[in-house]
Amino acid sequence: MIDWIDSYEARQWQLTTEGTVRYALLGLGWWTVDVALPAIGASELGEATLLVSSSTDKAERIAAENDIDRGISYEQFHDGVATDAYDAVYVGTPNAHHLEYVETAAEHGKDVLCEKPMESTVERAKRMVEACETAGTELMIGYRMHTDPAVQRARELIEDGFLGEPVSVHGNNSQPLLDMIPDPDQWRLDPDQTGYGTSVMDLGIYSINTTRFLLNRDPTAVHSRMASTHDAFDSVPDERAASLLAFEGCEMVSTASQNAHEDTRLRITGTEGQIELRPAFHGECGLHLSRNDLSVDVTHETFDAERETTELFDYFADRLLTDGDIHPDGRHGLVDLRVIEAIHESAATGDVIEL
Amino acid sequence: MIDWIDSYEARQWQLTTEGTVRYALLGLGWWTVDVALPAIGASELGEATLLVSSSTDKAERIAAENDIDRGISYEQFHDGVATDAYDAVYVGTPNAHHLEYVETAAEHGKDVLCEKPMESTVERAKRMVEACETAGTELMIGYRMHTDPAVQRARELIEDGFLGEPVSVHGNNSQPLLDMIPDPDQWRLDPDQTGYGTSVMDLGIYSINTTRFLLNRDPTAVHSRMASTHDAFDSVPDERAASLLAFEGCEMVSTASQNAHEDTRLRITGTEGQIELRPAFHGECGLHLSRNDLSVDVTHETFDAERETTELFDYFADRLLTDGDIHPDGRHGLVDLRVIEAIHESAATGDVIEL
Repeated sequence: MIDWIDSYEARQWQLTTEGTVRYALLGLGWWTVDVALPAIGASELGEATLLVSSSTDKAERIAAENDIDRGISYEQFHDGVATDAYDAVYVGTPNAHHLEYVETAAEHGKDVLCEKPMESTVERAKRMVEACETAGTELMIGYRMHTDPAVQRARELIEDGFLGEPVSVHGNNSQPLLDMIPDPDQWRLDPDQTGYGTSVMDLGIYSINTTRFLLNRDPTAVHSRMASTHDAFDSVPDERAASLLAFEGCEMVSTASQNAHEDTRLRITGTEGQIELRPAFHGECGLHLSRNDLSVDVTHETFDAERETTELFDYFADRLLTDGDIHPDGRHGLVDLRVIEAIHESAATGDVIEL
Repeated sequence: MIDWIDSYEARQWQLTTEGTVRYALLGLGWWTVDVALPAIGASELGEATLLVSSSTDKAERIAAENDIDRGISYEQFHDGVATDAYDAVYVGTPNAHHLEYVETAAEHGKDVLCEKPMESTVERAKRMVEACETAGTELMIGYRMHTDPAVQRARELIEDGFLGEPVSVHGNNSQPLLDMIPDPDQWRLDPDQTGYGTSVMDLGIYSINTTRFLLNRDPTAVHSRMASTHDAFDSVPDERAASLLAFEGCEMVSTASQNAHEDTRLRITGTEGQIELRPAFHGECGLHLSRNDLSVDVTHETFDAERETTELFDYFADRLLTDGDIHPDGRHGLVDLRVIEAIHESAATGDVIEL
């Protein structure tokens, strides 16, 4: 038990501690500036060397404020300006703009770490995967949960039989988006920017993807309901959504809402035990274990969203520097988009959608 | 807050502290003998005066062991033996036998407290309701959660707007039935005794009914999946089940399994707050509240399943003695059976079932 506690944060995935990957960051919203930039600053193998935004002025200003060498516009990025200054790109723009930047990065021979969901539609996500495969560049999707210690330890426990056979999964990810960003015209509420919708694309994806990672299996069928009633959600169908997802041997139920009290949970109940992540998805992930008559609560408050993001950048850099296999790659991310598309189709038609 | 804490157990429903209802208990399984009998013993308004079982010998023996006046057989009960000895009956037999005893009780002019689920099928449950209505006797279904203080306080908070608008509900009720009762031939696994199945009839009903009570609304549509893989569950379709239930304005997801780690939870997330019952259903119900940045955990360990059952008997007695309205009546219980029937129909056909 001492070993387990002392090695809780251990990067079992790490293959090297030497070398540096120079990142260009695209899309300078609050997440990139307030979380991703400091996360790279704290990373062992990553360095931010270029910022890319809508205008050269904005990119240069934010670069100067953050001690980054250089800032350029998207146009300059497409034109191949400063390609010597970076090895890989991080794409943190609104969903529907990922493809254009990834295609250009691939043409420049740059590897890509792209935020989730990887694009706005299955069709565009496929084109992204193909662009990188054709160019021979790496494509990783930014699933922070895969490198969170609570999730890593949970996955090991499941592999070791802690749960027996998984029976049911409950996921919830909800937040009051309009309290967090008080703007009804934000991109997450615009289907041209976000894709199929907002709550499942932006929040439900955490429950679904983390379950796929923990159980090492994918959904086989989906049924879903969703509704929007608040005015700000007029253009998206899923102010709230609830889904029933079939996995081989067990069932998952998942809810997500951009207009609800903040709460993130993921719980897997098995024949022999139970594992719950509470909170689950936005840092300080708590691991709650039950088996026989014993319950164990593991809290790990220093591992916040920024620290998770540092792990993400270091994991990707580690794989690029060692030519190692990347787990949450483009084809992995594509499965999530297929599931989300099916969730929306099921809610629209009332049908069960087989995957 | 002191008032709230000090009145946590207060029986806001109580109309009288005077009088006695004499109960005949039918079906002497472990629940009736180990829980219901001591629960009546501890009650203020109830008294057990007659036990009824498969044979006079068995009934007399258990009556003597528990200081009850008299024991008779089901045959004697049907024949009207000892009708002067009781005012009301408690029916704790396997589901598919409830109707025959309730019909006889109604013929004898006796009021009925019947365990949940009220019968094995919708059709038989309807006949039960009609028998009591025709005879003019009261019929209450034994939903212990309605009188549990955690549930009562949660309902008041919801009525007062604690959640804002309800957005999603998560329910789970799972237990390792074969560890608890190590007999693959037990009645809960026999569809002739239990009805549509085992996990939803016996466990899922708690999540569904408590949600109906808390939100004061009923499901309008159901989609469900279920499966049985363990040999002991060969005759029932739902060793595990997962359901998506539409309520007006919000969605519920619910899982239940008779072959899983023990866990009972019910959580309602709203636009402004969250209420969780954890554990939820089998005593010592914990009330966990979140709203804005504040979390409140209320534990109440002395309120176990027996104490909940005492409340149930006293509530029913209170209503009989005062001629007051009974909330979880036969028509209320009938809605649960319609929902459970729809859950099974949906799992069998893959269709959404409108209610």
